[in-house]
Amino acid sequence: MEAIEAVQSSVDMMWMMIGAILVFFMHAGFAMVETGFTRSKNTVNILMKNILTVSLGSILYFFVGFALMFGPSAFGMIGTEGFALLGREDIGFFVFQAVFAATCATIISGAVAERMKLSAYLLLTVAMTGIIYPVVGHWVWGGGWLSQLGFIDFAGSSVVHLTGAVGALVAAWLIGPRIGKYSGQIVNVIPGHSIPLGALGVFILWLGWFGFNGASTLAADTTLVPTVIANTLLAASAAVLSTALHTKLRYKRMDASLSLNGALSGLVGITAGCANVSLIGAIAIGLIAGVIMTESIRFFDVKAKIDDPVGAISVHGIGGIWGTLAVGLFDTTNGAFYGGGVGILGVQIIGIAAIIAWTSLTVGGSLLVIRAFSSLRVSKEAEIVGLDFYEHGTQAYEFKDTFRGSAPLSDDFAQRLTQLGKSVEAR
Amino acid sequence: MEAIEAVQSSVDMMWMMIGAILVFFMHAGFAMVETGFTRSKNTVNILMKNILTVSLGSILYFFVGFALMFGPSAFGMIGTEGFALLGREDIGFFVFQAVFAATCATIISGAVAERMKLSAYLLLTVAMTGIIYPVVGHWVWGGGWLSQLGFIDFAGSSVVHLTGAVGALVAAWLIGPRIGKYSGQIVNVIPGHSIPLGALGVFILWLGWFGFNGASTLAADTTLVPTVIANTLLAASAAVLSTALHTKLRYKRMDASLSLNGALSGLVGITAGCANVSLIGAIAIGLIAGVIMTESIRFFDVKAKIDDPVGAISVHGIGGIWGTLAVGLFDTTNGAFYGGGVGILGVQIIGIAAIIAWTSLTVGGSLLVIRAFSSLRVSKEAEIVGLDFYEHGTQAYEFKDTFRGSAPLSDDFAQRLTQLGKSVEAR
Amino acid sequence: MEAIEAVQSSVDMMWMMIGAILVFFMHAGFAMVETGFTRSKNTVNILMKNILTVSLGSILYFFVGFALMFGPSAFGMIGTEGFALLGREDIGFFVFQAVFAATCATIISGAVAERMKLSAYLLLTVAMTGIIYPVVGHWVWGGGWLSQLGFIDFAGSSVVHLTGAVGALVAAWLIGPRIGKYSGQIVNVIPGHSIPLGALGVFILWLGWFGFNGASTLAADTTLVPTVIANTLLAASAAVLSTALHTKLRYKRMDASLSLNGALSGLVGITAGCANVSLIGAIAIGLIAGVIMTESIRFFDVKAKIDDPVGAISVHGIGGIWGTLAVGLFDTTNGAFYGGGVGILGVQIIGIAAIIAWTSLTVGGSLLVIRAFSSLRVSKEAEIVGLDFYEHGTQAYEFKDTFRGSAPLSDDFAQRLTQLGKSVEAR
Repeated sequence: MEAIEAVQSSVDMMWMMIGAILVFFMHAGFAMVETGFTRSKNTVNILMKNILTVSLGSILYFFVGFALMFGPSAFGMIGTEGFALLGREDIGFFVFQAVFAATCATIISGAVAERMKLSAYLLLTVAMTGIIYPVVGHWVWGGGWLSQLGFIDFAGSSVVHLTGAVGALVAAWLIGPRIGKYSGQIVNVIPGHSIPLGALGVFILWLGWFGFNGASTLAADTTLVPTVIANTLLAASAAVLSTALHTKLRYKRMDASLSLNGALSGLVGITAGCANVSLIGAIAIGLIAGVIMTESIRFFDVKAKIDDPVGAISVHGIGGIWGTLAVGLFDTTNGAFYGGGVGILGVQIIGIAAIIAWTSLTVGGSLLVIRAFSSLRVSKEAEIVGLDFYEHGTQAYEFKDTFRGSAPLSDDFAQRLTQLGKSVEAR
Repeated sequence: MEAIEAVQSSVDMMWMMIGAILVFFMHAGFAMVETGFTRSKNTVNILMKNILTVSLGSILYFFVGFALMFGPSAFGMIGTEGFALLGREDIGFFVFQAVFAATCATIISGAVAERMKLSAYLLLTVAMTGIIYPVVGHWVWGGGWLSQLGFIDFAGSSVVHLTGAVGALVAAWLIGPRIGKYSGQIVNVIPGHSIPLGALGVFILWLGWFGFNGASTLAADTTLVPTVIANTLLAASAAVLSTALHTKLRYKRMDASLSLNGALSGLVGITAGCANVSLIGAIAIGLIAGVIMTESIRFFDVKAKIDDPVGAISVHGIGGIWGTLAVGLFDTTNGAFYGGGVGILGVQIIGIAAIIAWTSLTVGGSLLVIRAFSSLRVSKEAEIVGLDFYEHGTQAYEFKDTFRGSAPLSDDFAQRLTQLGKSVEAR
Repeated sequence: MEAIEAVQSSVDMMWMMIGAILVFFMHAGFAMVETGFTRSKNTVNILMKNILTVSLGSILYFFVGFALMFGPSAFGMIGTEGFALLGREDIGFFVFQAVFAATCATIISGAVAERMKLSAYLLLTVAMTGIIYPVVGHWVWGGGWLSQLGFIDFAGSSVVHLTGAVGALVAAWLIGPRIGKYSGQIVNVIPGHSIPLGALGVFILWLGWFGFNGASTLAADTTLVPTVIANTLLAASAAVLSTALHTKLRYKRMDASLSLNGALSGLVGITAGCANVSLIGAIAIGLIAGVIMTESIRFFDVKAKIDDPVGAISVHGIGGIWGTLAVGLFDTTNGAFYGGGVGILGVQIIGIAAIIAWTSLTVGGSLLVIRAFSSLRVSKEAEIVGLDFYEHGTQAYEFKDTFRGSAPLSDDFAQRLTQLGKSVEAR
């Protein structure tokens, strides 16, 4: 019997490692989505933000975050032991959680793209992966007070996505819109520079989500895993269809960027309930997620005038709230639609409110501190010419003088390279 | 013993889920191949077709297709129960089959790229994933008449690829070539706009194919799975080499697009027999697949004057026929080359003929019905300016005035965006 | 008990197959990195080199390499049996090793990009995957003399990466720099044409590396696998951070290309010791790897004047040496930092020296033979206009007249296509 259990634990370990590997790859997805949906003059910068986020996030989560999230609880609020994994043996579990933590942080990078200073962004990432996210995680997954209340968030609609999106909202609001986004009452559309990269990113994120949701089972459960995978596939598919149809009816054309974001909103929406709802429930959750997200993007863009280049706030935030509430409705055991009353729904609302309160206060506080010592935003000149040139001294593409809406970089750039050549010679 | 079986079923489930995840990712591969090998003015459109295909396909296959394919058989022709998975427990098996079904449909999108109307394409996708493919699947994998005859198609050279390719051929023929493809007797080459995306797509497809073939074992069989994976690797590799060499000899240069398609033709070719042939047999099948595909692309392009922008008909259709026949030759148990006579070969030919007949009739019928109520093709104006602008009101890239062979979009586009800004303001 | 062992072997097989699939996908990563970091006029050529390498490598390793590496040893120097896998049953192990072999060969393609003749490169690939790499592999992993000495290289910092990098160094040195790279004492920077593709490639490589290191356990060991995965994640993350910080301090900006290469150098660095060092050890190895790589790239570029467009020599060679030495320091059982003395360190140095000697002699010899019968380098005209046009008669992108630093291709190209059209007509 022990021998059998050993084999089963080998199977479970493998499934969790596959999940971790897939979630890691989501960072490539985020990088491509954010790159594709922003302008070419800020491409290198957004790529750097993405690779630095997963790197910084993994290291910090190792030293600090994991202990705060899964260490022995102090008053149900925060973990207290296990820094640098001291005294812990569950390395596989750590890896899986580390790539999750970085995912939460990277959601912000899309919303603040094309204007946030790299150094300020990195400091915020430190706060997010080191403290802000781990505390939320402790409440729900680390045995904290929300889990004791019966809050349900299987794979992280709230814990990961809402937390990231609240950070994104606060940051985008504090930093302000990109130059040229709002001219008086006119709301300008600033299209991304490469839809293929954006679409590739969405496919990669969808792929990674099978690990994100699928391995949140933490074991290769023969019944649960296929259900989670099927719910994930169907919810995302339904959301793509509802978004495409909704934009066709509303704007007389199937909008590509929104449909791609539709897939992501369906994925965020099913994340909380993927182990608790039926296949039909998953489709319903996805259908609604797509429509909500589309209207939310319009609201933030036009009414609230929060400039969010990739729609991260709506996809992860509104999608995350919807997903968390949807468990209260569609949970096949206790959901409101299955005769379970509004009990779960109440707990879910408490959880959402608590996460929004904590994250907005801590992210806002962090940003104000950073702003007090430095600045959150690049200079106006840097923003116009592009962050690639000003922060990294380079450009993302070879093509010259062909960028719309940016100063001609190439001469400056060529000159700079020549100088570099000369300074090299001089040494 | 039961406990051991439980662990083994956990292992088998996991392998099938990994397979499903990999096959899902093939849709990213198709999207990148079709994007890269067509013009930039139609990029958003082809991406939308791809993501809508997997979404629509998954939902429809859930409600209808799976039941028609794997439900209790009526006369060996069609399944009759299990709509929306009612009464079925095998959710993992459903997921794996759902991503297959969408794969079959998406083969068509490449062949009709740059001219087929999005709405007409989506209606055809409904027919393909809802009925046409499931019926073929029932015949071969659902216990239908072809399986009773002894037809062998392990992972779908015929069931998936030939079915998709026949749909592609009929659709491409009915819709006609792109404007500018044929000028009298001159056959013009319309090169793709991004070979790197095309190559990336081929690598992704190859990756996904390890799941496509490898998990068609439906269990983590210790002997069978490695054989299937090795055959898949070797056949594709051999096909790349034979295509590169063949194009070098025929055209005095190693052709990149054809060599990349060579990999795909080798993969299609080994799909039917990947569990039944030897490693040497796999290499032989791949070598031949590459050469056949190259000549077939030339035949359809130059002689038959069927305009297939990505070569889907030759890769999936001719490759699929070759793969299905190859089992009759190389099957190590009963193949003609192993002393088994021409028995299997006869059955394989019957199967191929039946699939071609059924698919061409139903796809043709569907398209004629669609054409009766609407049109299959975008307007001439839309095709010249690009489907991205006309169907989606956008463009895929930021670069302005740099497209070869397309009207200058950017001014129109800028104007349109300004108007959108203004209409936003007015509201 | 036998039944349990059967299940365990099924689990182990599955893990190795997943590893093989992930390592296969690294070829997509190499292709994207090398494409993104070179100029657009040589893009098709570098993609062809990559797909031909994995194809040629797999076939050759099947017929020859595997036997030389894992066949019964002759004097601890070379394997002697198992050509075309005759008499061998371990097909899964073969697949895993085959994709490794191709990885070793493809390292060279980046260093010789934009100037090496395709035919010469392919001949070198034959030598690398057929003989040169398998011999090194035999010494270390096939029971040869280095393994008998106690040389430790768990997943191939030396066996794969150093071997590939020594090949890269010898080839880049013999072939000489690209035209325009060095003007007298001036060292010109030739930037890549697409940083997003390069970054995507790095993410794909990092993903694949989890299989490269993780499945080198050759079994789904419940303790070892998570440790290896965690070490791989943390070392790469640490290297990204140290590279970004180091370039910030040294060049006053976080350099994107170097930071991306930083991830790779951390991965190469942890490859030898990923199963032998602690998590803290992995972080230390990664931190150092990033800094060493950055300085090494500068050394080869500016001092040694070896033109290596993608930095392959420093990433894989210097990173590989560092990783191999680091085992001698950080091995938790016998490493110098853990009281084990300098014993291992000595063996590691012997191994490094032997691999460098063997590889430089054989690669150098191969190239001299090739040069005697043909040439290693394309003509000056071909290099200026681009290898895509001269070797493949095509170009990678649709955009016209927008390339920096290359002759205007499009007219020639358009003319050529017209001629092709006409010759098609004539036939």
